[in-house]
Amino acid sequence: MMRCRKCGTNAVINMRHHKLSLCAEHYEEWVLAQTDRAIEKYKMFARDERVLVAVSGGKDSLSLWDVLLRLGYQADGLYIGLGINEPLPYSDVSLEKTRAFLSSVIARSEATKQSPSSDLEIASQKTLVMTHAPLLHVVDIPQTYGKTIPEIARAKMRGQGKPCAACGLTKRYVMNRLALEKGYTVLATGHNLDDEIAVLFQNTLRWQTGYLARQAPVLPASREGLVKKVKPFCRFYERETATYALVRGIEYIYEECPHATGNLTNFYKTLLNQLETESPGAKLSFYLEFLRARGEGAFEQFNKVEELHACELCDQPTTAPGRCAFCRMWDIIALVQP
Amino acid sequence: MMRCRKCGTNAVINMRHHKLSLCAEHYEEWVLAQTDRAIEKYKMFARDERVLVAVSGGKDSLSLWDVLLRLGYQADGLYIGLGINEPLPYSDVSLEKTRAFLSSVIARSEATKQSPSSDLEIASQKTLVMTHAPLLHVVDIPQTYGKTIPEIARAKMRGQGKPCAACGLTKRYVMNRLALEKGYTVLATGHNLDDEIAVLFQNTLRWQTGYLARQAPVLPASREGLVKKVKPFCRFYERETATYALVRGIEYIYEECPHATGNLTNFYKTLLNQLETESPGAKLSFYLEFLRARGEGAFEQFNKVEELHACELCDQPTTAPGRCAFCRMWDIIALVQP
Repeated sequence: MMRCRKCGTNAVINMRHHKLSLCAEHYEEWVLAQTDRAIEKYKMFARDERVLVAVSGGKDSLSLWDVLLRLGYQADGLYIGLGINEPLPYSDVSLEKTRAFLSSVIARSEATKQSPSSDLEIASQKTLVMTHAPLLHVVDIPQTYGKTIPEIARAKMRGQGKPCAACGLTKRYVMNRLALEKGYTVLATGHNLDDEIAVLFQNTLRWQTGYLARQAPVLPASREGLVKKVKPFCRFYERETATYALVRGIEYIYEECPHATGNLTNFYKTLLNQLETESPGAKLSFYLEFLRARGEGAFEQFNKVEELHACELCDQPTTAPGRCAFCRMWDIIALVQP
Repeated sequence: MMRCRKCGTNAVINMRHHKLSLCAEHYEEWVLAQTDRAIEKYKMFARDERVLVAVSGGKDSLSLWDVLLRLGYQADGLYIGLGINEPLPYSDVSLEKTRAFLSSVIARSEATKQSPSSDLEIASQKTLVMTHAPLLHVVDIPQTYGKTIPEIARAKMRGQGKPCAACGLTKRYVMNRLALEKGYTVLATGHNLDDEIAVLFQNTLRWQTGYLARQAPVLPASREGLVKKVKPFCRFYERETATYALVRGIEYIYEECPHATGNLTNFYKTLLNQLETESPGAKLSFYLEFLRARGEGAFEQFNKVEELHACELCDQPTTAPGRCAFCRMWDIIALVQP
């Protein structure tokens, strides 16, 4: 039985790459402190900024929202309903988990106001009381645009391949547009280390220098119409965010999207896990050393800033003049308000 | 049964990454042409240069020597006896295979002179007759320096770890020194694609930008006292060099060095083979795309040229003033002629 390094009680997690075992209480504290450190180190956002968290109902995004609220950030949620309910009710369950999480946060917040010695005090010394009453924005794709993601993908790709490309395009569009329209200065996603390095690995295997130049914990709002994007959990192993959700009692959707099974990203994750087993810390150092090399200018010359145009229909930024890829895919003929 | 694309007879190899199946005869021809193309593309050496091939008795280096001779290059061999004969007579057998190869080459060369329709004509249109009578230089480490590689490693590392570092240092030193002293302008090694990408993968996982900046098919003789190093087989899969040795009837040592088993390089090779199985050509594109990115200037700023000094004992180049790492490891107190 591993012992907590801080207090000697039973540990809930042993992080070999950090040579650190912690009990539930000190683990929560550690996650909060590490997240806040990442936010500061990578200059993600300040305490007075309005942050929009993209929530999927999974462990990463719900944990991220939870952590940001406990740290006292003004974090609201955005849930995008994709209409993926076959063969399992993936979208329905994930919205349910997201709503349940929000209710529990609000209930706990009320409780805190009444009794100041709640568990919110324990972990974070910085913020004794959650000051921000969080909002959840829900954009339902089939209701707004008339088709589910699998339907639009089938319609547009003639049954070829997975709907993941159509889904990614739609989510990026909706996240960016809603963030800007509702006045958020920054969009936070729950990507963890395993997510980040799977993409990094894929880009490295093909030496896609343009992508490598732009992969970072922060994508700045370098251009008009693009919201700043940040990944405060980028240094946490997937196991660590899962453990956080567990010790916090956050109920999340366990299943991953049915279309994601067997994809290349999961194959890369399996390979990278073999590496980690062989040398603990390999995944973290792959990421951190990449950020160092990138910071030292390794791919700087490949970071070409493309000129952006406003889509003639929706006014959102796009690389080519005319209609943007979203409006083309969805056959938008007039402005739709999400 | 796969058929040769050139002549329709039974194929001996199917290269999925090239979508190419070939019979023995056309495979030999292909290997010769591909090697010559790599030599030209990467500006390795010209036909009038004297090339020293580092031969270990394995499939890669013996095949490389064979190919260079058939292409009409002035290629001599250098065999370094490491004294590794436990638990198996690795060094003894590898020298034996090297000598046997040389004898067969010379015998075939004599036969060619008598009967001009030998097999040497078939594959290479460029050189009908091998014009160069190859030499083999043998440097026996225990005879020259008094200890085998495992012995010096034990003496210097107090039994810690493997002798691979001591072996690498010794081989690099002897290869460079002998090449220069015997008037060779270029040193060729049998590294194949699998060797190259295992190192590339290792350097990439830790983003060792200095090493990445210098990994290439050619290491130029940029500085006084350093011979140019080239890897003409760097684009061949290990399976391809093995098939070449097989169809040519080259007898090589099958065992790898007993100290190499279970090392990290072999672990990386296993991972990379999983990648290749998932997407054929992944290994080749990992390498070629890296060379492209490197050629486009990724990592250029990390290619720092260190100042070199002459070792005060052996006169060979070294980064720090005083005795070089080789002389220090081997406790050289006066110049030894290998």
